[in-house]
Amino acid sequence: MTTTPLQQPLRALHRALRDGSVSAAALAESANQAYRSRGQHDHAYKTWNGDAAQAFANATDALLKQGGDAGPLMGLPVSIKDIYAVPGLPTYAGSSRRLPAEWERPGPVVSTLLNQLPVVMGKTHTVEFAFGGLGTNAHHGAPRNPWDPAAHRTPGGSSSGAGVSLASGTAGLAFGTDTAGSVRVPASMTGVAGLKTTVGRWSTAQIVPLSTTLDTPGLLARRVDDLAFAFDALDPGLSPGSAGLPAMPDLADLTFGVPEHFFWDDCSPGIAEAVTQAIKQLETAGARIVTMELPKTDDAFTLFQQGGLAAAELAAFLHTSLPNAIDALDPNVAARIAAADGMPGWEYVRRRQVIDDLTRAATQRLWQVDAMLTPTVAITPPTLESLEPEGAYPKANMKALRNTVMANFMGLCALTLPVGRDAANMPVGLQVMAGPWQDARLLAIGQAIEARLGNSLDILGEVPTVG
Amino acid sequence: MTTTPLQQPLRALHRALRDGSVSAAALAESANQAYRSRGQHDHAYKTWNGDAAQAFANATDALLKQGGDAGPLMGLPVSIKDIYAVPGLPTYAGSSRRLPAEWERPGPVVSTLLNQLPVVMGKTHTVEFAFGGLGTNAHHGAPRNPWDPAAHRTPGGSSSGAGVSLASGTAGLAFGTDTAGSVRVPASMTGVAGLKTTVGRWSTAQIVPLSTTLDTPGLLARRVDDLAFAFDALDPGLSPGSAGLPAMPDLADLTFGVPEHFFWDDCSPGIAEAVTQAIKQLETAGARIVTMELPKTDDAFTLFQQGGLAAAELAAFLHTSLPNAIDALDPNVAARIAAADGMPGWEYVRRRQVIDDLTRAATQRLWQVDAMLTPTVAITPPTLESLEPEGAYPKANMKALRNTVMANFMGLCALTLPVGRDAANMPVGLQVMAGPWQDARLLAIGQAIEARLGNSLDILGEVPTVG
Repeated sequence: MTTTPLQQPLRALHRALRDGSVSAAALAESANQAYRSRGQHDHAYKTWNGDAAQAFANATDALLKQGGDAGPLMGLPVSIKDIYAVPGLPTYAGSSRRLPAEWERPGPVVSTLLNQLPVVMGKTHTVEFAFGGLGTNAHHGAPRNPWDPAAHRTPGGSSSGAGVSLASGTAGLAFGTDTAGSVRVPASMTGVAGLKTTVGRWSTAQIVPLSTTLDTPGLLARRVDDLAFAFDALDPGLSPGSAGLPAMPDLADLTFGVPEHFFWDDCSPGIAEAVTQAIKQLETAGARIVTMELPKTDDAFTLFQQGGLAAAELAAFLHTSLPNAIDALDPNVAARIAAADGMPGWEYVRRRQVIDDLTRAATQRLWQVDAMLTPTVAITPPTLESLEPEGAYPKANMKALRNTVMANFMGLCALTLPVGRDAANMPVGLQVMAGPWQDARLLAIGQAIEARLGNSLDILGEVPTVG
Repeated sequence: MTTTPLQQPLRALHRALRDGSVSAAALAESANQAYRSRGQHDHAYKTWNGDAAQAFANATDALLKQGGDAGPLMGLPVSIKDIYAVPGLPTYAGSSRRLPAEWERPGPVVSTLLNQLPVVMGKTHTVEFAFGGLGTNAHHGAPRNPWDPAAHRTPGGSSSGAGVSLASGTAGLAFGTDTAGSVRVPASMTGVAGLKTTVGRWSTAQIVPLSTTLDTPGLLARRVDDLAFAFDALDPGLSPGSAGLPAMPDLADLTFGVPEHFFWDDCSPGIAEAVTQAIKQLETAGARIVTMELPKTDDAFTLFQQGGLAAAELAAFLHTSLPNAIDALDPNVAARIAAADGMPGWEYVRRRQVIDDLTRAATQRLWQVDAMLTPTVAITPPTLESLEPEGAYPKANMKALRNTVMANFMGLCALTLPVGRDAANMPVGLQVMAGPWQDARLLAIGQAIEARLGNSLDILGEVPTVG
């Protein structure tokens, strides 16, 4: 199955780069080759950096040969969501205009990454200002979900190109951001793994803000183990006191909370079945499964449907920093921001307090288990066509984010990994949620789950060829 | 001059209570006596607790005789603003109705205080929900500023009864809260010392909220040294890692920043003169005086005039927790809250960011000096009569809080101490501001200033008698 070098675990590539059995140039060439063969079709990138990346990879190899080692991510092809400031690459944040030059000055996440000398293949598409869960974009078009060779299905968003960049072989690690599910939804819809970090753990400085209080940087990769490898490479520089990843636990020592309500309601055919089947496998392997609800999920979802915090926070950013962008917004984004104009300031304050209360309650609840398990996304990736009728987009968007936003509104960290296919033959993700700041432990738990269930390649195989 | 025992330094009373030269009963009796002679006239208290306090003091003496010592504040008569929950005493928060019973369950500040067995003389008046700087209250009337025996002048607010309780001899320490100046304005207007703590240092739990992001507990007392004594008694229990008060510095080792702009504009006759004179005395004593402006004071004041954060935050609290209170609000408070209804959520978010930016800039500025010196309040305490014409109240209220709100909007801690009288013969305060979390150092600096300039009794003498 592992026909291209980029399908190998990052951990193996890391070793191979150092023992000389793989070169950074070969990895970059593999990414460039994948882009040539299906890059236009998949449409994952706003800015493709292939030539510069190849030159950078060649230079990296010379350094590696000299015994140079800038860090674990050296020489590995990565993609970065076009909402992070990256030196030398323009930032559009999904809008129609290039943002001012200050949005090319890197913040802590990108600086910590770049110091390790990865090979940056390009900047991936995003929903405009990251405000949407399906991956559509009226200015630049939606990346194509590579798992349906016929219909143009959404790739999930807002990190819409991130999952596609992995699935179609142009990167081994993708940087996204997650405010309501924007890492986990595209990861789930494109059949890869994704990590939403705890809010505040990794700085969001120099990432174009959607929600100053809920934005989180996050990672997508083919495996939970790849996420763990990359997290271990980045976290010590970003999170003071980071102690590195704990050892992978034994499933027989873990207790998982599984809710009966909310997360399972009205899922597209095959989704609940695939996730239930995965949970049963974990139980068979010795994990203890207990029924446990998250607090006030219905209230939290109502708040989300009303616009949560992001609508007002994005409006504040646009009004102060990019006033000209408002008139040119994607209509689906504009509608959500316009709705915020009618919300008085005190209602924003009330919502902030509701979220603080939800966070307190959920944190206490999570102490009772090692993690919670739910379906990541309740719906099969919709076709673009199905979103055209009036009212179809908001409905599908809310439902796509329904299960993931709970982790954002409750202060949790969370990951997703693929566990099967739904009735439409599209990937299904299992969401694993843990309490605040449990990111490292969550990844170790995810590794144990993946070791049992198999990774993306084991479960889904290769993406269908195009053309 | 020190004709009543309560006029002695708290530090001296603390010793005297333990060596038996003063009894808690005598202190409580002195407070009760002051209340009998001028309590009705001064109108400092919403709830007077004199009889229970006397009984409590008697029991405290028995314990002291046994060598019992519950802490530095044991046996000392205190008053508490009627916005703190205190067991057994009703909370109105300046509104027309008694708040639900949960508002009699103490939070950390009151619990830390009560554990030391002080003698609680009563709960002092406040502007309704602490939303005003003059001290007026349409439901309960304004306490009388004791320094004008003829006209009914405002005592300052929102901790309107706190300063009066000290000036008129019914308490030796008063608890207030400060969101825009609500400790410092009444302290300045009634000729006592006041401390606004750094936001976040002391918990505001179980204090009826005006602004969840800017509220701070604070102290008023006759001397900075009394504030320092009480702070030292309370801070270790409220602020983890508190290291106690540093030694009083030598004025010759201190650099004070004094602004040229904003704080001096359009002060009532005699105020700038008294403060300038005090600063000259400090310079004569060896302190280094440098010209230094706080950043963007005009922008900050515009934001304050627009309602800042408090209008939306108080509205959120009332809408969720006390919806019935809204229709019964003091018209001056109602007008400020109604104005917030028209402010969209994104404008609240923008304001929050402006305040974060101001805080960062001011914190850096304050690194250049030991403290900043300004007049505390720009206006002489107005008569109630002068506030009656349409538009007079909002104008006077804004101006009363103009100099103090800068510390709140810029994340600083600050104190005030009396330095003289203005042309209307009313007390004038000197404001001393320091960077975030410098509270202990600020008090030590305040002690050094007070040691040079004299305390309230030295400078102002006794309040005029009534009747």
